Amino acid sequence: MDWIYRVNMTEGKVTKEEIPEAYAGLGGRGLTSTIVAAEALPTCHPLDENNKLVIAPGLLTGTAAANSGRLSVGAKSPLTGGIKESNAGGTSAQKLARLGIAAIVVEGKAENGKLFKLKIDTSGAELSPADELKGLGNYDTVAKLTEKYGEKVGYISIGPAGEMKMSAASVAVTDPENRPTRHAGRGGMGAVMGSKGLKAIIVDDSGTSRPVVKDPEAFRAAARTFAQLLREHPVTGEGLPTYGTNVLANVINEAGAYPTRNFSEGQFEGTDKISGETLRDTIIARGGSPKHACHPGCIIQCSGIYHDEDGNYLTKRVEYETVWANGADLGIDDLDAIAQMDRLYDDYGLDTIEMGATIGVAMEAGVKEFGDAAGVIELIHEVGKGSYLGRILGNGAAVTGQAFGVSRVPVVKRQALPAYDPRAVKGIGVTYATSTMGGDHTAGYSVAPNILKVGGDLDPLSPEGQVEISRNLQIATATLDSTGLCLFVAFCVLDRPEAMDAIVNMINAQYGLSLTGDDVTELGKKILRTEREFNRKAGFSAADDRLPDFFKTEKLPPHNVVFDVPDEELDTVFNF
Amino acid sequence: MDWIYRVNMTEGKVTKEEIPEAYAGLGGRGLTSTIVAAEALPTCHPLDENNKLVIAPGLLTGTAAANSGRLSVGAKSPLTGGIKESNAGGTSAQKLARLGIAAIVVEGKAENGKLFKLKIDTSGAELSPADELKGLGNYDTVAKLTEKYGEKVGYISIGPAGEMKMSAASVAVTDPENRPTRHAGRGGMGAVMGSKGLKAIIVDDSGTSRPVVKDPEAFRAAARTFAQLLREHPVTGEGLPTYGTNVLANVINEAGAYPTRNFSEGQFEGTDKISGETLRDTIIARGGSPKHACHPGCIIQCSGIYHDEDGNYLTKRVEYETVWANGADLGIDDLDAIAQMDRLYDDYGLDTIEMGATIGVAMEAGVKEFGDAAGVIELIHEVGKGSYLGRILGNGAAVTGQAFGVSRVPVVKRQALPAYDPRAVKGIGVTYATSTMGGDHTAGYSVAPNILKVGGDLDPLSPEGQVEISRNLQIATATLDSTGLCLFVAFCVLDRPEAMDAIVNMINAQYGLSLTGDDVTELGKKILRTEREFNRKAGFSAADDRLPDFFKTEKLPPHNVVFDVPDEELDTVFNF
Repeated sequence: MDWIYRVNMTEGKVTKEEIPEAYAGLGGRGLTSTIVAAEALPTCHPLDENNKLVIAPGLLTGTAAANSGRLSVGAKSPLTGGIKESNAGGTSAQKLARLGIAAIVVEGKAENGKLFKLKIDTSGAELSPADELKGLGNYDTVAKLTEKYGEKVGYISIGPAGEMKMSAASVAVTDPENRPTRHAGRGGMGAVMGSKGLKAIIVDDSGTSRPVVKDPEAFRAAARTFAQLLREHPVTGEGLPTYGTNVLANVINEAGAYPTRNFSEGQFEGTDKISGETLRDTIIARGGSPKHACHPGCIIQCSGIYHDEDGNYLTKRVEYETVWANGADLGIDDLDAIAQMDRLYDDYGLDTIEMGATIGVAMEAGVKEFGDAAGVIELIHEVGKGSYLGRILGNGAAVTGQAFGVSRVPVVKRQALPAYDPRAVKGIGVTYATSTMGGDHTAGYSVAPNILKVGGDLDPLSPEGQVEISRNLQIATATLDSTGLCLFVAFCVLDRPEAMDAIVNMINAQYGLSLTGDDVTELGKKILRTEREFNRKAGFSAADDRLPDFFKTEKLPPHNVVFDVPDEELDTVFNF
Repeated sequence: MDWIYRVNMTEGKVTKEEIPEAYAGLGGRGLTSTIVAAEALPTCHPLDENNKLVIAPGLLTGTAAANSGRLSVGAKSPLTGGIKESNAGGTSAQKLARLGIAAIVVEGKAENGKLFKLKIDTSGAELSPADELKGLGNYDTVAKLTEKYGEKVGYISIGPAGEMKMSAASVAVTDPENRPTRHAGRGGMGAVMGSKGLKAIIVDDSGTSRPVVKDPEAFRAAARTFAQLLREHPVTGEGLPTYGTNVLANVINEAGAYPTRNFSEGQFEGTDKISGETLRDTIIARGGSPKHACHPGCIIQCSGIYHDEDGNYLTKRVEYETVWANGADLGIDDLDAIAQMDRLYDDYGLDTIEMGATIGVAMEAGVKEFGDAAGVIELIHEVGKGSYLGRILGNGAAVTGQAFGVSRVPVVKRQALPAYDPRAVKGIGVTYATSTMGGDHTAGYSVAPNILKVGGDLDPLSPEGQVEISRNLQIATATLDSTGLCLFVAFCVLDRPEAMDAIVNMINAQYGLSLTGDDVTELGKKILRTEREFNRKAGFSAADDRLPDFFKTEKLPPHNVVFDVPDEELDTVFNF
């Protein structure tokens, strides 16, 4: 990948430049974070011209490496005020890689109210007005664009939430059937795209082929090993393909760590009705698909297709995080309602985690009752319409808590916490507290060694060893997020060292390098240091590396535990 | 002043304790900040039980010292997230001082939805339910309380905004006619009081007398000198008594520093219609009063009484900041409308500065048109009702900017900037940026030496010398805010060193001390250090000591200047 496209929205110009030395050899999160740190003003308003939106495929994206289709989207986050990388599946990353594009850097800001689309193909990249897409949901946006550009291209787009610059707005990426179901959800990347006046990117890779491999034979061998290991591992080879990510619902509920009704309990009485098992049964009964790849070359195929009661396509197989945020956290046990919410979130372009947690806070304020699924659907429409209530909710849990005077607001660095209560899985609490990304499970998934006993075996209720495990996972994840590989390969990598070797071998073979495992670890550290430094300049300090106090004072049933990893230990996470 | 009342709202108990050694010798801001820093958890949610609300009269309050009736209200601020001291006039401070009360410390949190009032008199202090006051504005609250407690007591109360825990909610203090027109406005102290479930404090000082003076003769001499100096100074003896604070409208507009239409211009074409001169003429023509003391012993008497067109009391003489925030900043030149807004803010219990600046941001988003006075009055009612729109606006400019995706948001540490554009008065820009309080002019009023040529003579358009002047003023102000003296005495103090001597002499005579000018300066430094340290623990760092970027990039007409005091210089303000 040799090129960077700079899209200057102020001037309406696109320039193609060779990848500068400083950014060479980077991909995915490594590249987005490096560019954001080097080029965006840390103290800028995230919706202003001094912020930059960077979109980058990973180092292995576009190759034959299994599960390598992730697309990283980075910027200063309007939700957290810090640096952000959020990544998604879908087909666009692979297409960008085939076009030789390392990154799209969206700069400046179009005149207020103007909307553009960016078309990229082998002949170059071009901006054109997108007034015809104004206010459209992601589904209609893609449908309209498909009329013009066809089905064989990838679409990256924002919905009304992004156009309204809401802090919970996502960037949608289409799957192989051109459904906008894969989202760079977290941290309001859609709002940054919206602030620039960019509604959609059309990625047409026709006429391209796979990136040239420096050592094809070595690559093939490593790729084969990697794929084999993924197939063999019980999580990536069986759990996820069979039940999708929502396989976790029963597991986490059983562990007493399934945050229920705005993080007030650790078990939800309705879990059985929304579990991965029930989800699979429902999908099969209605003729949906329990397996589906969100991009070509995916072995895990966790995404699936969810049909409504009449047997018509409604949305993807809803993810664990979505089911939790809009299920247990809201006291809702209605799978169809949750699937409808998912469809609406995808369409309006909203982060399902932030939105569920936000509505949990609103329910605590009495805006709706816990358990009121129809009420939640109403609320999502309010967000999509941009009503005043919608303006509150669409800007996330911290704003909603402030608006309604609620003090139990489950956020770190103003980003809502995901589906594992940090009191009952202390390792993930360490990641939530200290991640450069704000409350985020994917930044260092300590749930694996705490609960799943993958990559270690820690007592989830004890603070012992949690800082070290979170540190190591955060470093490894920063690297993994740079490869373009789906994070789920980590389940396999954590258990099988050969899988990590295979990844390093693929990178080496692809680029003609001779990286070692240590080099790869060093890359992860470097990325984290870059992100931390940006955050420091943006104003984050030790006090931001903390969970909200109520996790330290309110006991979580059924284990009746609080979060008790000492602050001083949290402050050592980045001692490397 | 020998006593502290601890009001535990969780348990519904009040205890009276002797002032502990650590707090002895402190008053006003010095005392509130010291207690908040020592007892409130810096990382707590401001609306939670770990925050404390501290109410304290100043060191000279209750004595015969002129203009010594200020009441300090402190807590961790729900608006800024940092420490806050906001002070107000009115009669309650003097009554508390006469009761020997150094501070009221409100702790814990009543059960959600429960509302109490606190009655303090010579027999002690008692909490009782205040359900009868639920949802009442400050005017009705005081009227209802007056039926029971009479007219000779002081009332400290919150309106619906405080009950709804809005970040722009103020704490109202009654004037000598028991009108709730004096407000500890900034930083949401009303929300903290509301979060605790405390609706009102009734301060009955009947049966008390002035605090005992250690050296009555020395006190009388110093007090006489001080009063004389205040009468002689052109600002405190003439400008303020004649025109009120709004004497500044023409002056600041002339200087091109009068922020207009959300800080987009430095001069407002309608200034003449809302100036201090026009205000005085209007007041006189309608039989209002151009002079009025907000507490006994006030020599300056800037407050005044504003009548409506029918000659009936409407509100106090509207303050400069209020007229600006709801006039020029909104493109409104209708004095009656602004006076109505002031009345509504006082009644709902809202900070007039935060609210005006917030509505400026909302107007930039198109919620109402600039200049639409009737629209603003509608918006204020929305806040009072707690509608969804009101929930946005009542939580200030930062939340409103985020809700509507506006990036030109004039806040520092999430608190709205007051009525002097920092690009055209660079010294006040330094104070805005670096004050422990967030965007605040009273924390170090560099407007005096920049524009009024009081206490120095600096070029307001040059960055030269601004850090030093702001530093010195911030130190002096921290001391002054501890004495209970009205900040306006500073105009005199800055020009006449004898006035400062008189203040020190009064304190010495009152308490039998032998403080020097240096001791007094040291006190100011100590207070600032305490506040900075709290803020550091709460998460503030150098990046928070900055103006929003648009002040550095957008040129302000008519001088076409940007804010150009270098960041490195800003970082030296607290080098003392």
